Amino acid sequence: MDSQQFREFGKLAIDFVADFYDSVRERDVLPSVEPGYLSRILPEEAPEEPQDWKKVFEDFKEKILPGVTAWHSPQFHGYFPCGTSFPSIVASLLTDGLGMVGVTWIASPVCTELEVVTLNWLGKLLGLPEEFLNCSPGPGGGVIQGSASEAVLVCLLAAKDKTIRRLKALNEDLDEDQTKIKLVAYTSDQCNSAIEKSGVLGSMKMRLLKADHLGRLRAQTLTEAFEEDKRKGLIPCYVVATLGTTGLCAFDPLEELGPICETENVWLHVDAAYAGAAFLCPEYRYLMEGISYADSFSFNAHKWLLVNLACSPMWVKDSLDLIKAFDVQRIYLNDINLKVKIPDYRHWQLPLGRRFRALKLWMVMKTYGASGLKKHIRNQVNLAQYFAKLVRSDERFLVDPEPSMGLVCIRLVGGDELTRTLLNNLLEKKKLFMVAAFSKGRLIIRIVIGSQFTTHSDVEVTWKLIRDEADNIGA
Amino acid sequence: MDSQQFREFGKLAIDFVADFYDSVRERDVLPSVEPGYLSRILPEEAPEEPQDWKKVFEDFKEKILPGVTAWHSPQFHGYFPCGTSFPSIVASLLTDGLGMVGVTWIASPVCTELEVVTLNWLGKLLGLPEEFLNCSPGPGGGVIQGSASEAVLVCLLAAKDKTIRRLKALNEDLDEDQTKIKLVAYTSDQCNSAIEKSGVLGSMKMRLLKADHLGRLRAQTLTEAFEEDKRKGLIPCYVVATLGTTGLCAFDPLEELGPICETENVWLHVDAAYAGAAFLCPEYRYLMEGISYADSFSFNAHKWLLVNLACSPMWVKDSLDLIKAFDVQRIYLNDINLKVKIPDYRHWQLPLGRRFRALKLWMVMKTYGASGLKKHIRNQVNLAQYFAKLVRSDERFLVDPEPSMGLVCIRLVGGDELTRTLLNNLLEKKKLFMVAAFSKGRLIIRIVIGSQFTTHSDVEVTWKLIRDEADNIGA
Repeated sequence: MDSQQFREFGKLAIDFVADFYDSVRERDVLPSVEPGYLSRILPEEAPEEPQDWKKVFEDFKEKILPGVTAWHSPQFHGYFPCGTSFPSIVASLLTDGLGMVGVTWIASPVCTELEVVTLNWLGKLLGLPEEFLNCSPGPGGGVIQGSASEAVLVCLLAAKDKTIRRLKALNEDLDEDQTKIKLVAYTSDQCNSAIEKSGVLGSMKMRLLKADHLGRLRAQTLTEAFEEDKRKGLIPCYVVATLGTTGLCAFDPLEELGPICETENVWLHVDAAYAGAAFLCPEYRYLMEGISYADSFSFNAHKWLLVNLACSPMWVKDSLDLIKAFDVQRIYLNDINLKVKIPDYRHWQLPLGRRFRALKLWMVMKTYGASGLKKHIRNQVNLAQYFAKLVRSDERFLVDPEPSMGLVCIRLVGGDELTRTLLNNLLEKKKLFMVAAFSKGRLIIRIVIGSQFTTHSDVEVTWKLIRDEADNIGA
Repeated sequence: MDSQQFREFGKLAIDFVADFYDSVRERDVLPSVEPGYLSRILPEEAPEEPQDWKKVFEDFKEKILPGVTAWHSPQFHGYFPCGTSFPSIVASLLTDGLGMVGVTWIASPVCTELEVVTLNWLGKLLGLPEEFLNCSPGPGGGVIQGSASEAVLVCLLAAKDKTIRRLKALNEDLDEDQTKIKLVAYTSDQCNSAIEKSGVLGSMKMRLLKADHLGRLRAQTLTEAFEEDKRKGLIPCYVVATLGTTGLCAFDPLEELGPICETENVWLHVDAAYAGAAFLCPEYRYLMEGISYADSFSFNAHKWLLVNLACSPMWVKDSLDLIKAFDVQRIYLNDINLKVKIPDYRHWQLPLGRRFRALKLWMVMKTYGASGLKKHIRNQVNLAQYFAKLVRSDERFLVDPEPSMGLVCIRLVGGDELTRTLLNNLLEKKKLFMVAAFSKGRLIIRIVIGSQFTTHSDVEVTWKLIRDEADNIGA
């Protein structure tokens, strides 16, 4: 494909994407394909000869597209949203066009420098304490990870290294191996699977502590766990608090957990994967009170902040903790002598190189402006409240717990079995997508307002489909 | 930004990318910016109000672009190449447009299914043993990781888990913690920093064994290391062999290392990050002889296979090893009952979700065809050979070791100091980019032919710049 053909193909692809969003309400949310459909219609071998791009594009529309779940449909209410927006898509296209790898500064200076600038911008917008920002005088700073999973794992590993260094300073004969196996991480039983997995990946016992009836990890529970483990000769090392849990969008109280971690020299990581974007709006910052106790904070801009996958900003109070844990040198990675304070991000993350992810963050912040981003968040919260109001108007349904951010959890008064039937029937019809969770031992259906295109009338469509199905099953 | 503005902006961005490549020879390879340049010219705060996209695009061209290192210039010879191609860029654009997250099958069926199909296609093209393929009857299969670093770490963690399970089956009273700290990983001192880092990240001792004079890890060295560690009561667990080392593009002999790993029940991972793409051409497959001993194999399609960052295909012989190590369940991640053999990729990787990376691989394989991809590889090897011939025509220079794939290592007969001066002067002039390495204790300059646009005359330009600088410093 030469550049002329690329111009032609690329512009058709742009129109395709625009049409895709323009017609977002016309598609079923769930695709009507059976498992294994693609292996049945695609050849078993790659083509030997090049195929014309027009033919490839036709194949894409005919064979690939029917297998797509419509994450941006206003009737997609599953998980948490996947960020997208027009400026982010263009920025990502430019990133691919420039085609560079962030390794050292010299490997592409702007890749490092724009990450610094955008994370200062974003950190300020979120109201993070200054010490987390690269523009502060200290060793704090922000970096873009590829996922919340990576962020949680990076900090777990840094916490492990830091704890060993601290104990070694107290006792230089310390047996590192024997100490490492005594380290313990803590989070709540409401944590995302990625947090539990970080313990598996990072070889640290990860205790899932019982959350309270509202899904929050409380001080007493954490204190008791620390005490219990210390009595056993174990060493508390790492706590992950969640702001906006996956199941119920509950918020762990940092002002309770923070002082305990501080006293015990335990690294506190705050995972706000979905809800973190809401802190752009000052009225939600009470939910992150105590953030100054955190050693690290991360959220997924690719969830609720209109940025495409993958973009997980993370800030740490002391970047030296990362560098000490991850620094592995090679002559071919020698950089120029920088003289100014610029992070060498390869020591802040798992992989050696990274995509130029800051560009989409920059373009989204500029084209929406802080005001536009806040408007987006507030609009979605309002739509969720509106949906909850509709549900509450029907006495067969309960909204429980209270709606939180864009999430509304509902169930049928008639019991779990009926709620499950309702969900299964709705999924079978493919017009709505949502997933189940548990709250206070009861099965609930999670309805997330996630699409940026959602309007009041879309919310009414969702409600009508649910209500009709409730009629249908005689709820 | 509405969809009409997106059409406009997107098409200008397509033209920008096409122009960027059309004028790839007109730019300096290294940008003329000083560290910290961007913080000095960008505001300290994000804008409060939305900015017009035309203004944002101007800002991009004026402030971002000057900080870009031109990875696709024929005069960029650093590291290994970063893959790009026009069909891959369009595919990536479509991926962002569809804006979905690969989690479970139902989260977007095509995301899982196309990954299965393309990795079957690619695995066959590379000549991998059938048991690595999802289409084989066994538990083998392919998955796309985000980086070689991730692939190496995933397999290290799976190897750890597998070894513990094996030993536990022999002795059910086994103390897992005490056993884990005895596990040892091995690679050569020529390994990429990412491999060494995987030991740090995965909490496993990683021994960097001495490579031979050609940069290869040999059987005797590995056997001796195993024996030495076993005498100390340690347990060999994981070996990473490299096909195409970063420094010299050396190939570890799998047919030597494989039987040793097999006998000792040690997981053999084969990292072919750069050179793996060459196995599309049957004439290079002798370099992976012994691949059937491997438990896992990965390479970066985003290096030499014309696919944009990030796309690191990895195959394993037994996917159950991954699933047993990484499976963490949640009700909200429940999938439909699949009934057919389809991988749940979230248990094959570190993060929970992933981008629809298979689309660019599919589009590249179709638009180039296997024949086009092979032509690309052979062309670059030929250009490297041509460059080596030019260097050898000048008696002030040595080519050492022999060129391997697209890499030519050169040094001045006059010694390391002179070679270093030559490199530094060339970098200062910003017309060429290359990095240093060591071979047999001598400083060398690595020249990688990596841009898909490179022609014979581009190679001559590079050579002339080097030769002139050698004249200049009186080499």
